[in-house]
Amino acid sequence: MLLEVQEGTLNPDEALTQLQRLPFEDLGFARIDHHRNLRSGMPEVVFGEGKSAEAISAIAGRILAHHQRVLVTRVSADKAAEVRASLPDLAYDAVARSLYCVKEPVASPGEGSVAVVTAGTSDLPVAEEAALTLHVAGVEVERVYDVGVAGLHRLLGELERLARVRVVIVVAGMEGALPSVVGGLVDRPVIGVPTSVGYGAALAGFAALLGMLTSCASGVSVVNIDNGFGAAMAALRIVRLSRKQGSDD
Amino acid sequence: MLLEVQEGTLNPDEALTQLQRLPFEDLGFARIDHHRNLRSGMPEVVFGEGKSAEAISAIAGRILAHHQRVLVTRVSADKAAEVRASLPDLAYDAVARSLYCVKEPVASPGEGSVAVVTAGTSDLPVAEEAALTLHVAGVEVERVYDVGVAGLHRLLGELERLARVRVVIVVAGMEGALPSVVGGLVDRPVIGVPTSVGYGAALAGFAALLGMLTSCASGVSVVNIDNGFGAAMAALRIVRLSRKQGSDD
Amino acid sequence: MLLEVQEGTLNPDEALTQLQRLPFEDLGFARIDHHRNLRSGMPEVVFGEGKSAEAISAIAGRILAHHQRVLVTRVSADKAAEVRASLPDLAYDAVARSLYCVKEPVASPGEGSVAVVTAGTSDLPVAEEAALTLHVAGVEVERVYDVGVAGLHRLLGELERLARVRVVIVVAGMEGALPSVVGGLVDRPVIGVPTSVGYGAALAGFAALLGMLTSCASGVSVVNIDNGFGAAMAALRIVRLSRKQGSDD
Amino acid sequence: MLLEVQEGTLNPDEALTQLQRLPFEDLGFARIDHHRNLRSGMPEVVFGEGKSAEAISAIAGRILAHHQRVLVTRVSADKAAEVRASLPDLAYDAVARSLYCVKEPVASPGEGSVAVVTAGTSDLPVAEEAALTLHVAGVEVERVYDVGVAGLHRLLGELERLARVRVVIVVAGMEGALPSVVGGLVDRPVIGVPTSVGYGAALAGFAALLGMLTSCASGVSVVNIDNGFGAAMAALRIVRLSRKQGSDD
Amino acid sequence: MLLEVQEGTLNPDEALTQLQRLPFEDLGFARIDHHRNLRSGMPEVVFGEGKSAEAISAIAGRILAHHQRVLVTRVSADKAAEVRASLPDLAYDAVARSLYCVKEPVASPGEGSVAVVTAGTSDLPVAEEAALTLHVAGVEVERVYDVGVAGLHRLLGELERLARVRVVIVVAGMEGALPSVVGGLVDRPVIGVPTSVGYGAALAGFAALLGMLTSCASGVSVVNIDNGFGAAMAALRIVRLSRKQGSDD
Amino acid sequence: MLLEVQEGTLNPDEALTQLQRLPFEDLGFARIDHHRNLRSGMPEVVFGEGKSAEAISAIAGRILAHHQRVLVTRVSADKAAEVRASLPDLAYDAVARSLYCVKEPVASPGEGSVAVVTAGTSDLPVAEEAALTLHVAGVEVERVYDVGVAGLHRLLGELERLARVRVVIVVAGMEGALPSVVGGLVDRPVIGVPTSVGYGAALAGFAALLGMLTSCASGVSVVNIDNGFGAAMAALRIVRLSRKQGSDD
Amino acid sequence: MLLEVQEGTLNPDEALTQLQRLPFEDLGFARIDHHRNLRSGMPEVVFGEGKSAEAISAIAGRILAHHQRVLVTRVSADKAAEVRASLPDLAYDAVARSLYCVKEPVASPGEGSVAVVTAGTSDLPVAEEAALTLHVAGVEVERVYDVGVAGLHRLLGELERLARVRVVIVVAGMEGALPSVVGGLVDRPVIGVPTSVGYGAALAGFAALLGMLTSCASGVSVVNIDNGFGAAMAALRIVRLSRKQGSDD
Amino acid sequence: MLLEVQEGTLNPDEALTQLQRLPFEDLGFARIDHHRNLRSGMPEVVFGEGKSAEAISAIAGRILAHHQRVLVTRVSADKAAEVRASLPDLAYDAVARSLYCVKEPVASPGEGSVAVVTAGTSDLPVAEEAALTLHVAGVEVERVYDVGVAGLHRLLGELERLARVRVVIVVAGMEGALPSVVGGLVDRPVIGVPTSVGYGAALAGFAALLGMLTSCASGVSVVNIDNGFGAAMAALRIVRLSRKQGSDD
Repeated sequence: MLLEVQEGTLNPDEALTQLQRLPFEDLGFARIDHHRNLRSGMPEVVFGEGKSAEAISAIAGRILAHHQRVLVTRVSADKAAEVRASLPDLAYDAVARSLYCVKEPVASPGEGSVAVVTAGTSDLPVAEEAALTLHVAGVEVERVYDVGVAGLHRLLGELERLARVRVVIVVAGMEGALPSVVGGLVDRPVIGVPTSVGYGAALAGFAALLGMLTSCASGVSVVNIDNGFGAAMAALRIVRLSRKQGSDD
Repeated sequence: MLLEVQEGTLNPDEALTQLQRLPFEDLGFARIDHHRNLRSGMPEVVFGEGKSAEAISAIAGRILAHHQRVLVTRVSADKAAEVRASLPDLAYDAVARSLYCVKEPVASPGEGSVAVVTAGTSDLPVAEEAALTLHVAGVEVERVYDVGVAGLHRLLGELERLARVRVVIVVAGMEGALPSVVGGLVDRPVIGVPTSVGYGAALAGFAALLGMLTSCASGVSVVNIDNGFGAAMAALRIVRLSRKQGSDD
Repeated sequence: MLLEVQEGTLNPDEALTQLQRLPFEDLGFARIDHHRNLRSGMPEVVFGEGKSAEAISAIAGRILAHHQRVLVTRVSADKAAEVRASLPDLAYDAVARSLYCVKEPVASPGEGSVAVVTAGTSDLPVAEEAALTLHVAGVEVERVYDVGVAGLHRLLGELERLARVRVVIVVAGMEGALPSVVGGLVDRPVIGVPTSVGYGAALAGFAALLGMLTSCASGVSVVNIDNGFGAAMAALRIVRLSRKQGSDD
Repeated sequence: MLLEVQEGTLNPDEALTQLQRLPFEDLGFARIDHHRNLRSGMPEVVFGEGKSAEAISAIAGRILAHHQRVLVTRVSADKAAEVRASLPDLAYDAVARSLYCVKEPVASPGEGSVAVVTAGTSDLPVAEEAALTLHVAGVEVERVYDVGVAGLHRLLGELERLARVRVVIVVAGMEGALPSVVGGLVDRPVIGVPTSVGYGAALAGFAALLGMLTSCASGVSVVNIDNGFGAAMAALRIVRLSRKQGSDD
Repeated sequence: MLLEVQEGTLNPDEALTQLQRLPFEDLGFARIDHHRNLRSGMPEVVFGEGKSAEAISAIAGRILAHHQRVLVTRVSADKAAEVRASLPDLAYDAVARSLYCVKEPVASPGEGSVAVVTAGTSDLPVAEEAALTLHVAGVEVERVYDVGVAGLHRLLGELERLARVRVVIVVAGMEGALPSVVGGLVDRPVIGVPTSVGYGAALAGFAALLGMLTSCASGVSVVNIDNGFGAAMAALRIVRLSRKQGSDD
Repeated sequence: MLLEVQEGTLNPDEALTQLQRLPFEDLGFARIDHHRNLRSGMPEVVFGEGKSAEAISAIAGRILAHHQRVLVTRVSADKAAEVRASLPDLAYDAVARSLYCVKEPVASPGEGSVAVVTAGTSDLPVAEEAALTLHVAGVEVERVYDVGVAGLHRLLGELERLARVRVVIVVAGMEGALPSVVGGLVDRPVIGVPTSVGYGAALAGFAALLGMLTSCASGVSVVNIDNGFGAAMAALRIVRLSRKQGSDD
Repeated sequence: MLLEVQEGTLNPDEALTQLQRLPFEDLGFARIDHHRNLRSGMPEVVFGEGKSAEAISAIAGRILAHHQRVLVTRVSADKAAEVRASLPDLAYDAVARSLYCVKEPVASPGEGSVAVVTAGTSDLPVAEEAALTLHVAGVEVERVYDVGVAGLHRLLGELERLARVRVVIVVAGMEGALPSVVGGLVDRPVIGVPTSVGYGAALAGFAALLGMLTSCASGVSVVNIDNGFGAAMAALRIVRLSRKQGSDD
Repeated sequence: MLLEVQEGTLNPDEALTQLQRLPFEDLGFARIDHHRNLRSGMPEVVFGEGKSAEAISAIAGRILAHHQRVLVTRVSADKAAEVRASLPDLAYDAVARSLYCVKEPVASPGEGSVAVVTAGTSDLPVAEEAALTLHVAGVEVERVYDVGVAGLHRLLGELERLARVRVVIVVAGMEGALPSVVGGLVDRPVIGVPTSVGYGAALAGFAALLGMLTSCASGVSVVNIDNGFGAAMAALRIVRLSRKQGSDD
């Protein structure tokens, strides 16, 4: 719709009125926004934490009825098994703790791939949540894992790969210094994801969050602690800037 | 250099050795990185807070000797006057509290413009710091000011303009809700800048910062409180993705 | 009593002396305030967290012996089963995690209904605690669920219903932006309830709490995180302003 | 407009379209919402902190051109003098640190008065900001000052007056206990305003804020620290519930 | 020893040398200070949290070998059962979550009793920890429970009892306002104990702690959150001021 | 009055009624509690911070009209000079930053003296506020200054003096360890006063406050940061326990 | 390598190039830095928290294949049993919660021993983690346990032992005062380790951390809460300063 | 004295008795510890913040009467001028904001020099405070300034110098990542000093402090924010480990 507005084929006043009538499906306790796919390049993604297996099944089932893809984040293994009993098409990624389904190959939403970089092996679940989200969205992922700043030589050997992607997602816990170093070496958009890895003064990820926000490398932006999904969606917004035509499933 | 690596004309090992020899100029108390222009699309920007007028003059003078552009952020009016006494080429933007100089028209670093959106009139200094940084970098800016969520109709009337830009920077203090609303309406990359506007529970910008980090609109990323400069540099990294050739002054 | 004082039929000095003699029932470990019904329109409500099933049964039993209604909040399913073994008149609302009993239809305490609005489906337990409290108090409830600010069109379609109620309770976690938007669109009293939904920078509800306290929509007031009961009681104080005569069971 | 919707004389779709076209006046750096008077019972109120005297004069002047009343909060004595040089109709209340003008008697927006209660004499500026806001809105105010909980007899002697008002605003710093005590004695809506009075563990008002949010008296709601204006606007929303007809200047 | 110094029968230099030789018993992982009884009126009290049943049994066994009394605080029911299997002389107080033994009646350490006052029934465990500590120390306790400030009449009826004791311990969670009210009505030493009762803004007892520290009633002092034991020991220091002769078991 | 209740010569119900009628003097913006002298051993003490010289003069003048003593804490030198222009009987203690007047020798409120101990020389202002408060209350003070734990020998040489007093007030900033050490060596009541001395992790006194609250020496109680006055009032409550008859001026 | 640089036998440029090629072993999800042994005197130590037994076995197995020693910290008893099933050479230290193996006597990395001092018995796990780390590194350890500041005589009796070591590690929870006292008595390097022992205001170790950072004894440095391993590694860096020749296994 | 104990020529009991008699000079408000020079290698250093020029002059004058060296940290230029009027032997270092005097060349307290490394030019005052303290203590200093992690090549070029010193002090604000990188490249003891450089999420140095405490490079220890003096004293404790004989002035 906004594209039409942009191209002048839709009057903004009418756009507003249409906005109010955008299709969503009311399950009583939830309203599913089937139109989001068009707007963001992804169908509505279900945040699984704090939702029952029944609720997840109901919502994911309705999304699958309309779209080729679905993603449910933050699902425990037990809950995932329950959901899969009623929705066997869903696969479960135990590291990313997410349920997902990609019915058929999705056209890439834009040009280029996204690198997912981690400081340590404990950052894996968050990194894989980002990678899986990008995979469901049809974006190619480069994994560059365990290259924290205490052993710089591991990162320096990977600069060549980082120079080839469109966006770099940097996942790091503890002091969260890796985005600063990457941001100083690479001119691509860098999105930092602090993780809750660490203890004591790590403050469940806040040390890393504050560190990334005050990064001395200019132009690094940040998402919430452990929010691999959010970083992937921010990267997707950037990748989609270069798409030739809208893609939907 | 990284471009050469990317194109295969430079061996990564040699790149590293070159990296160590990158030109910087040692003033004794500071090392100016004259190569940064090539890497980031901007010459080294001077953070003026806590630096004396003499130090700023020395550093900015050296940068101007090598580049067509210079930017000094966070400079009070008094200090700016002192600096301009010795460097009259610098102009002072009192709202953005920054000294700058653009000697000759800069080629745009990429395609498209960047929108700077504010929630209230008190967010102006931060917004103007972002706008000025983009101006110095050669990027065109769309200003959409005073469209906070308590009066939604003001924002809804501007959606058309937001649909035309490449990146949207949203500057907001107090509860920092505007990026969520904009991120829900626009599919462009959205960079939130919390401001220290407010008192009490606003916690000098932390309420807005936390609010933006936990935005229910997926794919919004965030920079430090009041960091208009950082948001502009993050936008610049995105805009430069579409450049045909490197631009320098 | 305060009504009598207001009407001049009771001398304030005597009122004080009476205040000291107000009836409460001493169970040894607890003092039940049977007079509260008259003062607040609700019998004393039991905060179930940290109380044993035995203690809850003893207190709730004594309240039921004097009143037509009882409410016990923050009770787990297991503890509820134990209490119901000895007090089978109590029903258990698993979403609101509360035990309650309304022996006979309660006269409305005033004019009009109260809307309970949520940003997402994870806010349901808190919203239902508010709705159940209002139900026990005899107030009609309008539920408007899953209308968060990232999909504004869902809220805009419900404005008509919000225009009909006397008070709007807005329940939201994460960045807590919904009360600001509702407060800007509706002129009714708006009571914000932050929820602990979210992770990382959501700070267990503090991001939402700070966001609501610094709302740019003037006249929004706030209660404690997850305190659906408190919001309902604040709404009840407003609704009771229009009552013709005191109502008790 | 919402009243029309409520009465069925306006279709909600049309309402939305109108919403987008609501009149605001664009000063370049600010957009004045002249329609707010109708919606909230007050013209747009100017938050003076961080605005220059010139900006305040420009905005307040435009409001006075359209309305009978204006209020500018958080203005220092010096800035107030500057503004009054160009807008001599404005009076300055030094305790409430606010500029205001009420051109002609305003019809009361509803029934009854509002009590403003303080714990100590240092809470006066916040209390007077609330009182002045209510005065500009046409609501009668009862002042009950310096009745903190360390000397309960001072409060007990004023219960009679509190029983006569529609809403009670309780302003308190330090431990912020007064709203709990008032809320236990009075069945009216109670709005707590924590103040930044105190030092050390008072945490610039956060001890009082946390204390009010966790009040053991149910149904107390809270606004931001030192936000006398916000408490008055919340009270105004309640008082307006009983109005016979809309009032405007 | 300090008494001897005070009476001039011991030279301070010698006192120091003796201090270094004070008897403690080294269990390898712990050093039991058998002399503490004389210094503080209580044998060394064991903090049970984080110690194994074996460690507790070993330490408590050695204390019982030298003294008539022992107290172990913060012991779960399971761990208590294990300890009692090897030390059957110990009794377990399930509310105070403490093991204790008083072999024979202890002479009172001074004049007068101590009141333990609670705001609500959820504060009981902390209050009973204080009461049990005082009981083991030989001090008489007055329990005044469930007299929180939301129902002032309950407290006012107990003032007579509070006027008879030497020290008042006030235990309260949530906003922690009760010590302020008690401190304003009673001229005895008042020791506040914040409890972790509450949720959200109660911040696990910090709202109450901050509230008590900023109490508007002067002369209220405070101990750590949930530290009933510490409040009892502070009261014991005061009660012992009036003792005629040292008492030991 | 409470003494009468205690002695049975006053019925508690009547006591309450009298409580409500306790004399206070209403200055419009403040209510002076002339009865406090009898209740707490001190006339009402004026908290000078945030009060104008005029307000202080008015309140202090009224107190002096009824009592032999007055104390105004937290007064800057400039404000003190203004107040003394109208109330020349007041003396100003520049270290304690307090105005005071003791018209004639006050009978001691009880037996024994109070020690005021400091860790460093920067804690002096807080210590002197405590000492001056005790002086005005008629209590003798022992000053033991600059005996912090980094040079233990300085403290060990003063144990003899500490063994002679009734109460020990320990004033310390930075890590606030001194009360733990003193509490382990002395069996008297120990009241800790954290000070805001220090920087960075001292967190304006919170490091010391937290340290004192978690003291490993049992029975140490604490007052607010920099609250020398409050510590003195807590000590006064203890000293008064041994008084033969009430003393007033 | 840095030694060679220091001795002039290696050109720094070449050193850099070598740095990039330092050997690490890529397990896919982890990169093991086999060269760290030479650089830090310890093979890479595995942080066990948040790693599966499989991952730990894989990494520890590869380290053992190259080195005589391995250490895995923060491993629960259950996980340790799983790991030992596949790597029976590993021993488990239940107090230090660590797996380790020292195949043959390691030559001391330098002169002298390190003292590990604790304030209480609850600090044992952290102290033993430090002691085990030093043992694996070949450093002799002096244990001085349970000498907290509330019973100074226990510490004073151990000064002789502390005077003999090269570095003193001081482990303390609650108020964390012990490093200040030790730092005032001993001139050796003192490294403070705050522990999470305590509750309420202990803030899970932050009270101790802040206390140690603001220690009034100059020259005390600090590591993260509960980080016994880190303190041992800091001590190892100091001990290695006096080594005659590099030692490896 | 401790050396004598170590060598067995002094009985520990006698040592204690001597400890109590250690010489300090009592100025009334301060006790100067003239013996500290022997214990720590530095005479007592005066913390100038919050002390008057008169107090500083008195204390520094007494120290100069006994020692060849004196250091007063945290002195403003104005206060320094006042002090120098009475003590003209003192020099003022405006960057380090410290007064000092070194009457004659001091013998080095041990072997080797100390490097002071900074991330940016704004960290200079803290770095120079460390360097000046080391200079007064007779330790040689290597300055390596402005080598922050956003431009790694600046640091890599200085590794050779860092390999030559005994201790590395790393001074950094904002995200405080530099100690992690240095600690990963250098095997010397690394002491991190967070600075309060930065704004917003830098939290006045806490982001850097938390970052350094959670450094992924093992064996980095940390001192308080902006505490250049403390880092120098910690380095001095290490350097003194290798001294041949005690040095005093």
